[in-house]
Amino acid sequence: MTTGRRPGDSGTRDAILAAAKEGFATQGYAATSLRGVARTAGVDPSLVTHFFGSKDGLFEAALALPVDPAALVETVLGGPTGRLGERIVRTFLLVWDSTPGQGPMLAMLRGAVSHEDSAAKLRDLLLRSILRPVAHAAGADDPDRRAALLASQLIGLAVTRYVLRLEPIASAAPDELAPVMGKTLQRYLTGPL
Amino acid sequence: MTTGRRPGDSGTRDAILAAAKEGFATQGYAATSLRGVARTAGVDPSLVTHFFGSKDGLFEAALALPVDPAALVETVLGGPTGRLGERIVRTFLLVWDSTPGQGPMLAMLRGAVSHEDSAAKLRDLLLRSILRPVAHAAGADDPDRRAALLASQLIGLAVTRYVLRLEPIASAAPDELAPVMGKTLQRYLTGPL
Repeated sequence: MTTGRRPGDSGTRDAILAAAKEGFATQGYAATSLRGVARTAGVDPSLVTHFFGSKDGLFEAALALPVDPAALVETVLGGPTGRLGERIVRTFLLVWDSTPGQGPMLAMLRGAVSHEDSAAKLRDLLLRSILRPVAHAAGADDPDRRAALLASQLIGLAVTRYVLRLEPIASAAPDELAPVMGKTLQRYLTGPL
Repeated sequence: MTTGRRPGDSGTRDAILAAAKEGFATQGYAATSLRGVARTAGVDPSLVTHFFGSKDGLFEAALALPVDPAALVETVLGGPTGRLGERIVRTFLLVWDSTPGQGPMLAMLRGAVSHEDSAAKLRDLLLRSILRPVAHAAGADDPDRRAALLASQLIGLAVTRYVLRLEPIASAAPDELAPVMGKTLQRYLTGPL
């Protein structure tokens, strides 16, 4: 205990955070209450406020993504420009598919659809931290417009595959999806618009 | 009053329905309560149950779309196959843009993201009533897969334009979007996959 933290603290905080992730991901922002999260975590509601301040603070913590946007951009850009679209789809699917239950990403997506703060966070993460840098690096004209077009197909992919579970996209292997949707992203990124 | 209905009934029912559409569209399914809807409509909660039975019945009534899917399919198919993709985007934007606040469609989309019944309804409407018939009529192989790909780009367009209000897609004129996304839909529909 060299950090001086009591062991119980981090366990309690983790339990609250896990309950919050579950709640936001399955029920969305509006329907998730501090009281409900506390009940699921088996703690007193005052502890939720103690650790996270407010519902927004809890939401913020629950949305912490398991990936570093800068590392994603680097991965995507590490290869020939002609296959950038396909690499974006593969990287996107890898991040989503490798996260059990797609927890934080689903929570962010569900939150964004019902909650303006969360929509702003998603816009910021997706466009400013990931897609605009990629569009700029690809060297095409009008990178903002291209980044928005990329976002429209990627968000559509996430909603159909993970939220609506629309077949055959929901069960398709990345190897099936990447070439087909990659071609769309490639055109949005480097083709004539 | 030849129908024998009391005038007050339809006014009350309309007020409840308007409050429900507003609630489901802005807050989503889970966070919208019969009690809250009754309060917004200025009626007693028992009247909501009287007219709509349950929250699901109310949701169902609120989701009634202002368009007939069969008529949409006919519009989209009435023209050269080579520009099918572009006509789909134009028709899609026309329906959304011409509905004030995108009420029922936004409610369905927001509902689908947080509520399995509503997700099933959206899958059913979009795929079975609209996109699969279009894909079949286009005469391409593997119409289910093609319809799902169409859905992924159209849902992505709706989320980025109307929910996330991501620029420049949010403010783009249909004439700007239709050629660019139409080409994607055209390939998903009739091109090699």
